[in-house]
Amino acid sequence: MSGEYQRPAAGPGGLRLHLNENTAGCSPRVLEAIRAVSALDVAFYPEYEEVISESAAYLGVPESWLLLTNGLDEGILAATVAAAQAGVTGGVLADVPESIVPQPAFDMYAVCTGAVGGRVVEVPPRADLRFPLEAVLRAIRRSTRLVFITSPGNPTGVRIDLDDIARVSDALPPGARVFVDEAYHDFCGDTAMPLLADRPNVIVGRTFAKGHGLAALRAGAVIAQPDTLGPLRRVVPPYSLNVCAIAGLRAALSDVEYLEWYRSQVRESREMIYALARRRGLPYWESGANFVLVRVGARAAELVTGLAGRGIFVRDRTGDPGCDGCVRITAGVVEHTARCVAAMEEMLCAAP
Amino acid sequence: MSGEYQRPAAGPGGLRLHLNENTAGCSPRVLEAIRAVSALDVAFYPEYEEVISESAAYLGVPESWLLLTNGLDEGILAATVAAAQAGVTGGVLADVPESIVPQPAFDMYAVCTGAVGGRVVEVPPRADLRFPLEAVLRAIRRSTRLVFITSPGNPTGVRIDLDDIARVSDALPPGARVFVDEAYHDFCGDTAMPLLADRPNVIVGRTFAKGHGLAALRAGAVIAQPDTLGPLRRVVPPYSLNVCAIAGLRAALSDVEYLEWYRSQVRESREMIYALARRRGLPYWESGANFVLVRVGARAAELVTGLAGRGIFVRDRTGDPGCDGCVRITAGVVEHTARCVAAMEEMLCAAP
Repeated sequence: MSGEYQRPAAGPGGLRLHLNENTAGCSPRVLEAIRAVSALDVAFYPEYEEVISESAAYLGVPESWLLLTNGLDEGILAATVAAAQAGVTGGVLADVPESIVPQPAFDMYAVCTGAVGGRVVEVPPRADLRFPLEAVLRAIRRSTRLVFITSPGNPTGVRIDLDDIARVSDALPPGARVFVDEAYHDFCGDTAMPLLADRPNVIVGRTFAKGHGLAALRAGAVIAQPDTLGPLRRVVPPYSLNVCAIAGLRAALSDVEYLEWYRSQVRESREMIYALARRRGLPYWESGANFVLVRVGARAAELVTGLAGRGIFVRDRTGDPGCDGCVRITAGVVEHTARCVAAMEEMLCAAP
Repeated sequence: MSGEYQRPAAGPGGLRLHLNENTAGCSPRVLEAIRAVSALDVAFYPEYEEVISESAAYLGVPESWLLLTNGLDEGILAATVAAAQAGVTGGVLADVPESIVPQPAFDMYAVCTGAVGGRVVEVPPRADLRFPLEAVLRAIRRSTRLVFITSPGNPTGVRIDLDDIARVSDALPPGARVFVDEAYHDFCGDTAMPLLADRPNVIVGRTFAKGHGLAALRAGAVIAQPDTLGPLRRVVPPYSLNVCAIAGLRAALSDVEYLEWYRSQVRESREMIYALARRRGLPYWESGANFVLVRVGARAAELVTGLAGRGIFVRDRTGDPGCDGCVRITAGVVEHTARCVAAMEEMLCAAP
């Protein structure tokens, strides 16, 4: 790895089921809000008061517990920069700051850790891709500054017990944090938020990219106790969300029906992919997210290429630890899933 | 200082001449571009190819020398995080990373330096507020990682000789960088870009917030040799500019006439403020930026409050080092400047 995140090729049009995006597009209210932005709104530094109070209300936390970020990526960066500082004593860095990253995982954890001069401690996956609690606990040591937990997991979709996260929190050395990346929270409801009140070492990350369909507007959130959040606030520039992200986020939060509709589409789409896997005798993982990981075996690359030839993009995750022969399929709009499932069925039947 | 940037109060409407914004609003083409963004554009991760190539062409640099950032603030943060790493040897931080910041200066240099656990070395201003070259050279030592130079200066508007920047570059220890913040470049044309070819320790920062009027869209750029830029690329998340910033920036770059018009407005407005200062016998600084610093003396706070009472906001800079009794007035749209100058004239005449 080059140390820099490589943006996946998006594909020239076609059906994008490879990036966990919301292929329904955002709510019409979001577009209306963006189109109401004026020439002066664009030229003036934006106001944050309303979007902060409305986001805090939506998330059910006090404003002092919330930091809005330019996509959750920025939240991950801020947590990493802040955590690295916790290893500095009297101006001297005692240990190289370490981030524990259970595999497989989102690339940004390693990219950000590298950017601050830290070291990634990879915890290998279990064969069943469930959260490797015991291995994570064994990896924790004095130089641990961060543990990244994606709940539900990506690319697995696997859900994680709140108790497991609590046990990681309990095991951390002073100053270390567990960052619970809940990017896919909207599709299962799981959350570590109930842990926050008693645990200053837990940080929850959220995004409005998925359920609300704002990936291109860049709107994320980190939630933690105010003292925990302080060092992250110092990292995030004061005008981090732009005026269109603010307008779009406010509109998206107001459209509860849209989110509910999309969630129900995701639930139905997941079942369609599970059913396909069962019909073809393929292992798959029940998912708390808007995607499903299916083990198609040695044909993974061929299947991904074949689908791309029909204008349907899914993601080959064979290169990820524990994901040999696996493809990840976005489970969103039912009609899109139906097209993908039909094409996969046809190709899997045709294969020897 | 709390270590966190405090957003200045924007004021309830009125004439905003206190934040160096473009009070004309962005080009109509920018609004058109934003309004052409579709629901799927909002939901899909954005494409960067065209905006990168067009920005590189506009700036006259190869793409590998350019990093677009979520406002120049993010460029400052990335440079600070990257520079701090240059002080780490074998995983151990030998010295606390130091940023040299000639005063008065933009708050973000200190905020970002603090965020990475660094120390700010303030170089006090000269009485005439010219660039304190000798004092900056004296401040450089082994633990220096960054020197921040704002050219032209803020809040002074004072222009800086390219030779002075070259001398700072020559004096730096290995791994250290001089960050030339050219946020106000559009209003004088001064640039350290000619230094880049021979000097891997120079980084130039630009923004499209001012001349192009995109402050709320957040679009900045850092330019340096590719190897210098590498560690900064690792810090900046891959989807840092949002889809509206991309669309707006592309449109803004295409509207050369708008920029030329606004530049001519700024030139005329600066002359109007100089003339007022001369008429009233007040010291002022010739400015390379879209604002003018005027020393009104002990009446500064009273003047700022009085103007605010008339709905005209200017910035009291009395608290800034070397700026006792000074106010900073945005010099943009001529009609706006005329209103401000008339009100100031009236108040200054009325004063004892």
